[in-house]
Amino acid sequence: MLIGIDPVLTPDLLRHLGAMGHGDQLVIADANFPAESCANRIERLAGASATEALRAILSVMPLDTYVDAPARSMQVVGDPEAVPDIVAEFQRIIDEVADHPAQIQSVERHEFYREAKKTYCVVQTSENRFYGNIILSKGAIAPS
Amino acid sequence: MLIGIDPVLTPDLLRHLGAMGHGDQLVIADANFPAESCANRIERLAGASATEALRAILSVMPLDTYVDAPARSMQVVGDPEAVPDIVAEFQRIIDEVADHPAQIQSVERHEFYREAKKTYCVVQTSENRFYGNIILSKGAIAPS
Amino acid sequence: MLIGIDPVLTPDLLRHLGAMGHGDQLVIADANFPAESCANRIERLAGASATEALRAILSVMPLDTYVDAPARSMQVVGDPEAVPDIVAEFQRIIDEVADHPAQIQSVERHEFYREAKKTYCVVQTSENRFYGNIILSKGAIAPS
Amino acid sequence: MLIGIDPVLTPDLLRHLGAMGHGDQLVIADANFPAESCANRIERLAGASATEALRAILSVMPLDTYVDAPARSMQVVGDPEAVPDIVAEFQRIIDEVADHPAQIQSVERHEFYREAKKTYCVVQTSENRFYGNIILSKGAIAPS
Amino acid sequence: MLIGIDPVLTPDLLRHLGAMGHGDQLVIADANFPAESCANRIERLAGASATEALRAILSVMPLDTYVDAPARSMQVVGDPEAVPDIVAEFQRIIDEVADHPAQIQSVERHEFYREAKKTYCVVQTSENRFYGNIILSKGAIAPS
Amino acid sequence: MLIGIDPVLTPDLLRHLGAMGHGDQLVIADANFPAESCANRIERLAGASATEALRAILSVMPLDTYVDAPARSMQVVGDPEAVPDIVAEFQRIIDEVADHPAQIQSVERHEFYREAKKTYCVVQTSENRFYGNIILSKGAIAPS
Amino acid sequence: MLIGIDPVLTPDLLRHLGAMGHGDQLVIADANFPAESCANRIERLAGASATEALRAILSVMPLDTYVDAPARSMQVVGDPEAVPDIVAEFQRIIDEVADHPAQIQSVERHEFYREAKKTYCVVQTSENRFYGNIILSKGAIAPS
Amino acid sequence: MLIGIDPVLTPDLLRHLGAMGHGDQLVIADANFPAESCANRIERLAGASATEALRAILSVMPLDTYVDAPARSMQVVGDPEAVPDIVAEFQRIIDEVADHPAQIQSVERHEFYREAKKTYCVVQTSENRFYGNIILSKGAIAPS
Amino acid sequence: MLIGIDPVLTPDLLRHLGAMGHGDQLVIADANFPAESCANRIERLAGASATEALRAILSVMPLDTYVDAPARSMQVVGDPEAVPDIVAEFQRIIDEVADHPAQIQSVERHEFYREAKKTYCVVQTSENRFYGNIILSKGAIAPS
Amino acid sequence: MLIGIDPVLTPDLLRHLGAMGHGDQLVIADANFPAESCANRIERLAGASATEALRAILSVMPLDTYVDAPARSMQVVGDPEAVPDIVAEFQRIIDEVADHPAQIQSVERHEFYREAKKTYCVVQTSENRFYGNIILSKGAIAPS
Repeated sequence: MLIGIDPVLTPDLLRHLGAMGHGDQLVIADANFPAESCANRIERLAGASATEALRAILSVMPLDTYVDAPARSMQVVGDPEAVPDIVAEFQRIIDEVADHPAQIQSVERHEFYREAKKTYCVVQTSENRFYGNIILSKGAIAPS
Repeated sequence: MLIGIDPVLTPDLLRHLGAMGHGDQLVIADANFPAESCANRIERLAGASATEALRAILSVMPLDTYVDAPARSMQVVGDPEAVPDIVAEFQRIIDEVADHPAQIQSVERHEFYREAKKTYCVVQTSENRFYGNIILSKGAIAPS
Repeated sequence: MLIGIDPVLTPDLLRHLGAMGHGDQLVIADANFPAESCANRIERLAGASATEALRAILSVMPLDTYVDAPARSMQVVGDPEAVPDIVAEFQRIIDEVADHPAQIQSVERHEFYREAKKTYCVVQTSENRFYGNIILSKGAIAPS
Repeated sequence: MLIGIDPVLTPDLLRHLGAMGHGDQLVIADANFPAESCANRIERLAGASATEALRAILSVMPLDTYVDAPARSMQVVGDPEAVPDIVAEFQRIIDEVADHPAQIQSVERHEFYREAKKTYCVVQTSENRFYGNIILSKGAIAPS
Repeated sequence: MLIGIDPVLTPDLLRHLGAMGHGDQLVIADANFPAESCANRIERLAGASATEALRAILSVMPLDTYVDAPARSMQVVGDPEAVPDIVAEFQRIIDEVADHPAQIQSVERHEFYREAKKTYCVVQTSENRFYGNIILSKGAIAPS
Repeated sequence: MLIGIDPVLTPDLLRHLGAMGHGDQLVIADANFPAESCANRIERLAGASATEALRAILSVMPLDTYVDAPARSMQVVGDPEAVPDIVAEFQRIIDEVADHPAQIQSVERHEFYREAKKTYCVVQTSENRFYGNIILSKGAIAPS
Repeated sequence: MLIGIDPVLTPDLLRHLGAMGHGDQLVIADANFPAESCANRIERLAGASATEALRAILSVMPLDTYVDAPARSMQVVGDPEAVPDIVAEFQRIIDEVADHPAQIQSVERHEFYREAKKTYCVVQTSENRFYGNIILSKGAIAPS
Repeated sequence: MLIGIDPVLTPDLLRHLGAMGHGDQLVIADANFPAESCANRIERLAGASATEALRAILSVMPLDTYVDAPARSMQVVGDPEAVPDIVAEFQRIIDEVADHPAQIQSVERHEFYREAKKTYCVVQTSENRFYGNIILSKGAIAPS
Repeated sequence: MLIGIDPVLTPDLLRHLGAMGHGDQLVIADANFPAESCANRIERLAGASATEALRAILSVMPLDTYVDAPARSMQVVGDPEAVPDIVAEFQRIIDEVADHPAQIQSVERHEFYREAKKTYCVVQTSENRFYGNIILSKGAIAPS
Repeated sequence: MLIGIDPVLTPDLLRHLGAMGHGDQLVIADANFPAESCANRIERLAGASATEALRAILSVMPLDTYVDAPARSMQVVGDPEAVPDIVAEFQRIIDEVADHPAQIQSVERHEFYREAKKTYCVVQTSENRFYGNIILSKGAIAPS
């Protein structure tokens, strides 16, 4: 445990978050997500929900202001306009916690998988609600 | 996720529990436990409490009936007779879930560390209550 | 050995099954299958038949309901309509054990090999009957 | 699969058996044996019983004629003179298959564990009968 | 050394032969063959000729009956019809030892190298006769 | 870079600090310290002084309140009572930044080396002042 | 520390600089640069600015005289003609320290990332000024 | 040191030379050559010139008689017909030491780099003369 | 294959022989020797006899003149004065090939095993005659 | 090659010299020295003499002023007072190049081997003169 750092941020996740640079992305994934076949770097947060993970990660990671969609969710199969409860909850957390405002944009399911394969790492949670996945893009921190 | 298996049991923890044999031990540790300097095999359950971990582990792991103390807790420094709330909760979970009855025995703190170094693995939780540590010894399963 | 878990599920196989996500696939292969040249992850179940392996795996792994063919067998060379005894036995086990009904579909032999190379892992059994191979696709588990 | 070689002898087990020299030992262990904490080299035969493993191994491995006890079993705790059924079965297989006659000798349980730690490898089977463990010492093959 | 197994079959070669499946191939190569730049898996049999290696390998490995050419040699550069003495000797050994009859077919030298790169492993012998190379394809073993 | 975290804390150092538990120790070392022969885990902070490192580390790491000397410096050879300027500066930083008050205690040089070998990791800085070394012991964080 | 060598040149960075040959390139990157996703070889200089790193590296590394642009910076997004202060400072250091004169040329941001992926290594500094990145090409040293 | 073997042939270089087969190539490179970015296998001969390395290597390695150019040098940039002194010296050593006569052929610089990436290994010397690079192709040794 | 070097000296064995220094030892072992449990470095010469190996090794390796027994054999169990045929043949080869005269001395069997564990490597041959083992100590080569 | 750094200092040797701290030692060894059995870290300088290596190493490495014997040679066996020519040459180089004066002290041969095993690394040269070995202890560099 570290002073002032959310205990959900494990040592390896802290390492990943610190090593990511401007424009690198990560996936917060639910418990059913095919994490190991998508990515080389995986950190499991057994016992944490996707929303707890999002809140913890945004407490230290800035969002990318150079891209249109720094936060992307997976569209419901067959109902691309639907907004699952968990995605609405993701948006509320971003509104509350993120260093920059950002509107979640949804992408088609297989496009989401292809994008996930390009990210820096996948953070797999114990989230059991469907569509509990979000891709975040890391921003830069200006000199203070 | 697997059918009928507690989702707190991550892939690596399932592997460890299955690979352990009769008499092998594991530690369920709190968030302040010096896990990496105690043991080679570590599984982190970020987001799970020690009691959630105990309940999940006992759902698949038998307790050793060949030893006097298949479950051991750490004594409060300066008050060896005290029973912290979390240890009492450990005992209630064992009473409810374990395949065999077992009475938790307490051991002095440094002795607990020495014993921890001999175990098969340490399962580090996000438990933030002090003294949230327990050593379990695995039993054998008889032919049905 | 673990309580309530089929002993054919070795520690490494349990790890693989748990780490697989929605849409990941695995091959249960017979003893003549070229497993090591097909895949990076291999688990051998020496002494177990392909049907014992199927029964054990389906006891914990849900089948994919998002795809047309969550279970696929290899067509007999020169007789694509034939249903070998072992494939009929695979179907009976699925009917009896699987969490969802699924009709095995057969694919041409070389197509089967190409599909096998894309799976998450190959489980090689001691099955000595020809055509004792099946590809399964893992499903998701909804919140209870 | 190989011509004339018992299919229970997996590729890795064949490698171990061939690499062992005169005086090297191996353990055939039951499903409850603490194999991973005893030895670095482990081969699992999920689905094979200890007696199937013994029969397969003796089909290619000579017994040591330089030592008093080339085959050793574990004594029943509290009844060192007892001969469990499985040990009697081990003896019948040796009598039938081994290249040299050998009388199984029993050793006290903790002594058995200490001896197991010195062996070349542990072959863990799915044997679920208690006391299904045997240590074998490999012999030399004279020029023909 | 193992009972009834040709001592030229080293522990690692036995492992490779056992791990190969139906349709996997191996190269028996002469001492001048560029083995390490052709393949990842190499087993050296220093002191054994290519013909000794062929005899030993065919004693345990079935030939593929599903392909036209389960045994292929390298054509003499500039004289594709020539049959070097060592290739004739390969044919005599196959006629004598193999589980199925097979006629060696020759392939052009650079085609041979390209095929060699696709095989499961290369077995490099001390054979010093030119053209002492042969590619074998492994067959399946039917239930007895 | 992460929000609210000192940029001197590199990804690997953050990982080490998070993985350390109650009672684990680390060394902040100067540029002449024999770091690689002392410890397995090393993190270099090229360009940072030992005092910058101390300030950054104490911003997230609690000091151990269970031991007499959670902060230890190296005695000047031949003048054990001397307090080098850099050690005085270490004390001022602790007084200002640490979560608990702590008085630096000095230990003899060879004893310091022996203690350093037992720590969790060595953080080697570019500090070029002699005696710019300090051993810190990590504390526990109580539930809030 | 070594005699006459800038202490910012860590052991691993010295190794990289020595192992690079004529035409190999390296990136000096700022703290926000996505270093780990760009390159396999990374050396972090926590606590050093990009300009300190440039000065140290040019003290031992010759610039390439065979290419048009041995030093390249990243163009400001939206203002390709702008010269950020830090780039002007890079130019002054090159003018002062480099073994050959060289005029920094700027490349478009995404082109810079693509070029960075081809370099021998990335040296990530604690530089917090934006656009604090430069690609250098190593020259040859003639016999003296 | 070994009897009758040039001491410049280090243990690893001897290994490489022996493992190379007919048609495999190696580069003898000067001190400025970008060896690590060209090839996976590198052997450094610090203190040896390229001509000493050539003499040592040809003492045990036959030249390829199946190809037109078993020895290739790099053309002087801008003067492709020039023969640098060191290349003339390479030719004299081949004339004197090689098992077969061979005329060095020159290739354009970037073509030389592309060819170097395909070789079995690069032997990097301390040669400080420019153009001190040569690619050799290994021949076969006939039965005596 | 290399010019003038015995083809029994495989690439890895050449590497070991070259890397050994004055006083380092190696074992030439017969096919029954427990090589893998004796030593970390093993080179197998499948198809070569122990005497072929001895002749090949002595063609490049000097014998140690600083020790009393640079060549040691294993005593026949129960008959320490006996000189097995193969040991007599070892002596004839040393007399004929070694750079220095040396008289083989025999050591008791278990002492031989203990000594073998201290050697640099074990060269395991296909020698099937019993007692076909010899330990050699490498000498130094003086400047010529 | 690097500006102002002796080209005998290979990339790996530079790394070792930079990573060594105050009191760490290294051996410069002759070609007959048993380097691989003495130490884990080895750097070979094939083609360089021990005296060239000493001169190059002392150009960047300070000598330890805290110990009595920062430079130690091996005593001639049977003549401990003798000073071999190469040791005299070592002394002249130290007198000329080292940052501090130091008188070489000789230690008995087996003591030299024991000390060598404790050093940080062994630098093995092509020195063929006997007794061409020296142990150096690295000093500290004070702030300028």
